[in-house]
Amino acid sequence: MPLFTTSRAESVAILGEVELLGHIRRWLGDVAPRPPYGMGDDCAVLPPSPRPQLVTTDPVIYGQHFDDRATARQVGAKLLKRNLSDIAAMGGRPRAAVVSLAMGGNTHLPWLRGFYHGLAAEARRHRVKIVGGDITQAAPGFFGAFLTLQGEATTGRVLTRHGAICGDRLYVTGTFGGSLLGRHLSFQPRLAEAAWLARRPEVCAMLDVSDGLAKDLHAITPRGLTPALCPDAIPVSTAARRSARLTRQTPLFHALCDGEDYELLIVVCVKADKAALERAWRRSFPRVRLSLIGCFAPRGALPPGSLDLTAYHGYEHLR
Amino acid sequence: MPLFTTSRAESVAILGEVELLGHIRRWLGDVAPRPPYGMGDDCAVLPPSPRPQLVTTDPVIYGQHFDDRATARQVGAKLLKRNLSDIAAMGGRPRAAVVSLAMGGNTHLPWLRGFYHGLAAEARRHRVKIVGGDITQAAPGFFGAFLTLQGEATTGRVLTRHGAICGDRLYVTGTFGGSLLGRHLSFQPRLAEAAWLARRPEVCAMLDVSDGLAKDLHAITPRGLTPALCPDAIPVSTAARRSARLTRQTPLFHALCDGEDYELLIVVCVKADKAALERAWRRSFPRVRLSLIGCFAPRGALPPGSLDLTAYHGYEHLR
Repeated sequence: MPLFTTSRAESVAILGEVELLGHIRRWLGDVAPRPPYGMGDDCAVLPPSPRPQLVTTDPVIYGQHFDDRATARQVGAKLLKRNLSDIAAMGGRPRAAVVSLAMGGNTHLPWLRGFYHGLAAEARRHRVKIVGGDITQAAPGFFGAFLTLQGEATTGRVLTRHGAICGDRLYVTGTFGGSLLGRHLSFQPRLAEAAWLARRPEVCAMLDVSDGLAKDLHAITPRGLTPALCPDAIPVSTAARRSARLTRQTPLFHALCDGEDYELLIVVCVKADKAALERAWRRSFPRVRLSLIGCFAPRGALPPGSLDLTAYHGYEHLR
Repeated sequence: MPLFTTSRAESVAILGEVELLGHIRRWLGDVAPRPPYGMGDDCAVLPPSPRPQLVTTDPVIYGQHFDDRATARQVGAKLLKRNLSDIAAMGGRPRAAVVSLAMGGNTHLPWLRGFYHGLAAEARRHRVKIVGGDITQAAPGFFGAFLTLQGEATTGRVLTRHGAICGDRLYVTGTFGGSLLGRHLSFQPRLAEAAWLARRPEVCAMLDVSDGLAKDLHAITPRGLTPALCPDAIPVSTAARRSARLTRQTPLFHALCDGEDYELLIVVCVKADKAALERAWRRSFPRVRLSLIGCFAPRGALPPGSLDLTAYHGYEHLR
């Protein structure tokens, strides 16, 4: 189903704001609480929480985060999943979201219904409430949905990108690369896995890989250190291999640079019992791959055979 | 200064994401805390709060919420002020905001600096921290900034739009109409006034007028009732009178329909001592006008001389 329509009768332009909001409330169903706990007042009200609060914001914009190959439901789900992945990366649990929509008057009403159904299904799965939002008309042909997700820590601590020291091990979940072959839509945010990891004292830092492993590794690497990765240990996805056949790059290039993997990059303390962690992981998540890909070495003292990351760049926005 | 430029050297496109984020951090200064309490990690972390939490979201989009007559600083300030006005309407205090930016590569870098300086000045004034955000490239000529503001109740209760009964009085702050003559940029969100009102037990409902008094009155009117307004009591702004000379509408039409007034509409309990409330208001806010504009009457029993609101429509989005 197309995102935009030339038929005015099937476009959002035939509706006033009040009618459109009524539709959106129905499409969201039980995911949209009544005011003041949801849409319909000046603000949404969330009950107080004794835990540290987490906030993140990520949009989906037509032409940037999806194109005509994606279904409306997939786009709605992706909008929430991108943000869920950020909450997961801090070891958090999601609570409530607001969605600000900017769209042309030629937006196709059935497409928008699919989008909200996809968003609602994903919200229901993770017990997230959609508590507020805004709708603004933009130029014809534009569609952007901007979601802000609020969550809270699941344990006393919040896992940040900081805290690694020399010798600490680097682990990743799942496989990498080939996002453009559909994985940027089909991924599952690693909420359960991340909450489990946040309870393990040997895990000292974490992030979710959204801009590519090569680029996001920099964000978790302390000054004076460098990631020493074993090239053969990087879990390359089947999609990365298929992409490589299309682009004539190597599968490893796609695994390191494609981005939108939404897998966890985990720093484990150098003194930890690796085997115990890996055994416990397999018991809890027998179907999710956990790979030891390397460790932190002193800058300028890369062990022989390590991957030279300077040859790889992750996704760079704007440029 | 223009929002877009044809000179690539002066556009955001010459910067990578990391450089641009560095600029934005500098432009925001002390308003942007360090991670994990601000930008730079997967989520921002806010300390727990024992009070009910408030969340609202409103954007500024070029061509919709501002045009070339607005300065960059005014646009940045407006983005936050729109959201502050919503927090005020619930009697709340603002805490922290995230900003998601979608803009063409031809966005003028000096304009963007002015925008963030305006946003930062307004945030500083109201002790709001900008704790996170996202930047996405959009088509050339597009600029939209989507802010989500989090706040908390200042008292045990949150003032909603619900709770009015027959006979309750309707008050408004300030004056109405003529937003397009600059008032949509120059307004001051009524945070102090609203927090004061939330502590008065005789105030039973409140909202901020953003879509026009005529339209927003509906949102605060319970089923079975109708607002009985005295036409002469509506505080018409000088800008509404000037607009009326340009459009040949009446000044009252502009006061009721223009929208973007960001003044408070307040419901005061029928049994309250009006004179005591008005005296206390004048002592606390000697320079802010508080006007009694009418009361709630049973539907179909409008007192003679009351304003017929069906002749007036507020701003209707999308249609």
